[in-house]
Amino acid sequence: MPSNLKDKINFKDKLSKFSNHWSPRVIAEMNDYQFKLVKINGDFVWHSHEDTDEVFIVIEGEMNIEFEDKIVDLKQGEMFIVPKGVSHKPYAENECKIMIVEPKGVVNTGEQGGDLTADNDIWI
Amino acid sequence: MPSNLKDKINFKDKLSKFSNHWSPRVIAEMNDYQFKLVKINGDFVWHSHEDTDEVFIVIEGEMNIEFEDKIVDLKQGEMFIVPKGVSHKPYAENECKIMIVEPKGVVNTGEQGGDLTADNDIWI
Repeated sequence: MPSNLKDKINFKDKLSKFSNHWSPRVIAEMNDYQFKLVKINGDFVWHSHEDTDEVFIVIEGEMNIEFEDKIVDLKQGEMFIVPKGVSHKPYAENECKIMIVEPKGVVNTGEQGGDLTADNDIWI
Repeated sequence: MPSNLKDKINFKDKLSKFSNHWSPRVIAEMNDYQFKLVKINGDFVWHSHEDTDEVFIVIEGEMNIEFEDKIVDLKQGEMFIVPKGVSHKPYAENECKIMIVEPKGVVNTGEQGGDLTADNDIWI
């Protein structure tokens, strides 16, 4: 049977297709999970996701994630999993390109909402 | 409250800790999914996973995935999602370092089994 396969995904190609900060772009789905690329710069808002862990993988650049009791610095080739329910604030001094992995439907600002809340299912 | 966070994960550090081929090492869990690093070289076996999609991300090197009707070439910075139930055979002409993402409990040889079936939950 033909397998109806999608095309492979090249992170640099996909990253060249958008420039907005803090606006996740979906690049792939695995079961009910999504892989999203995000360009970040400056401070995000404190927020948490009550129902799911959230994966951060740095593709290019440097960022950190601030927690109540520590700050985790991440650079290219590093990943971190924010446990569900844990309040955190992503930050990048300069533009940083990351991939996040989380269940389909998760909103970027979690339970907190606000101006930085992005459309949730924009594919590139 | 202290957030009991795990350490960040550096792919190169983790890859330096093992050398076996076709033997996945778990580096992180997100909900009921696992992120695993694998060093591959040569031919794997044809197999499928009836219950889940499977994500391949190339960290270093080149590989391909053969399907019944096409071959997908992947290099560093590229990813591919093998849909559930689709028979496939990974291959690398030289050693290639990859990350796979799939639900906890998935066996590397899927429904097919055989000599290359690896222990399933080895953490590094």
